[in-house]
Amino acid sequence: MKKTIITIEREYGSGGRGIGKKIAEKLGIKYYDGELLSLVAKESGYTEEFIKQNDQKRTQSLLYHLYIGSQILPASDMIFIAQSRVIKDLYNKESCVIVGRCADYVLRDCDDVIKVFIHAPLESRMERVKNGYGEKAENYKAYVQKKDKSRIAYFNYFADDSWGRADAYDITVNSDVGIDKTVDIIVDYIKAKQGE
Amino acid sequence: MKKTIITIEREYGSGGRGIGKKIAEKLGIKYYDGELLSLVAKESGYTEEFIKQNDQKRTQSLLYHLYIGSQILPASDMIFIAQSRVIKDLYNKESCVIVGRCADYVLRDCDDVIKVFIHAPLESRMERVKNGYGEKAENYKAYVQKKDKSRIAYFNYFADDSWGRADAYDITVNSDVGIDKTVDIIVDYIKAKQGE
Repeated sequence: MKKTIITIEREYGSGGRGIGKKIAEKLGIKYYDGELLSLVAKESGYTEEFIKQNDQKRTQSLLYHLYIGSQILPASDMIFIAQSRVIKDLYNKESCVIVGRCADYVLRDCDDVIKVFIHAPLESRMERVKNGYGEKAENYKAYVQKKDKSRIAYFNYFADDSWGRADAYDITVNSDVGIDKTVDIIVDYIKAKQGE
Repeated sequence: MKKTIITIEREYGSGGRGIGKKIAEKLGIKYYDGELLSLVAKESGYTEEFIKQNDQKRTQSLLYHLYIGSQILPASDMIFIAQSRVIKDLYNKESCVIVGRCADYVLRDCDDVIKVFIHAPLESRMERVKNGYGEKAENYKAYVQKKDKSRIAYFNYFADDSWGRADAYDITVNSDVGIDKTVDIIVDYIKAKQGE
């Protein structure tokens, strides 16, 4: 198989991570999401703990800081820049599946990257978060919606407004068809795109 | 196979009609897009010619007319209402593929409808419109973009703002993977959704 980079964005509770892992397993390639942190730590010099704490903290926009020529960027922006470098390095180096981290945006100009989006109806996602992931919440609807909101805000802050827009992806799937079937369909798409 | 209704929305030049026809053929079910017109004519009492002329003419919003209690709706709105009735009748009656006509919106509350969106990069669509459909234009980029705009405006006028948003569909595909492969992937999804 040719070198294959697959990015996966996903609604919270849609099973995107599990789908990403299974795709990587099926294709015999590496899988990254949280695993990126240790690479980002190496690149940025921050500890993994510090990155986890500052990752989602957003201040003024990154462009604003670059524009005013600020010498010291907020930690979250430094982390995003280091993370983008790690993602581009991975792209140049090896076949892999990268879940989240705006990887589709970071690699937006790379035509050979296969961009995937996974979603599911809110009810299915509430059910999966509760009984699949075993997460505790008083109000699962509010919990899932808040997680979605934070994910989209992260994307909009560092990337653009293309989150969840069909034309930003090669394939998008409602995972209610079943996790394994979703994996099969996406692997099928990848193989066709690679001319196999 | 269980009764299966598939709606397809598509960017102009993405090959959506051809894909819809092939899906219908593969599943051995009926295909509708322009063919709906004769059914709409029967339902509305208008001639097909009159429908073609007035179909895309939009005036004040349909809701506005309903709100002010206007007894006489513009022809385009009457046509849309008749068309919605025809689509709902088809849904109740037979397995079929319906391309365009806001069918996904008309059947938005029917969970068993499989909703598909087809898109492709602008360059591929310009190429297909020129050499595939053999349409004549001075500026193919402007031509395709204008057609898209008019399609989206039609959708936004009669339906909602969900056009092209991944979560409004069961599956969306970039048809650059190939028309036949796109058909295969969607048929595969449909069969999985039907529990086959």
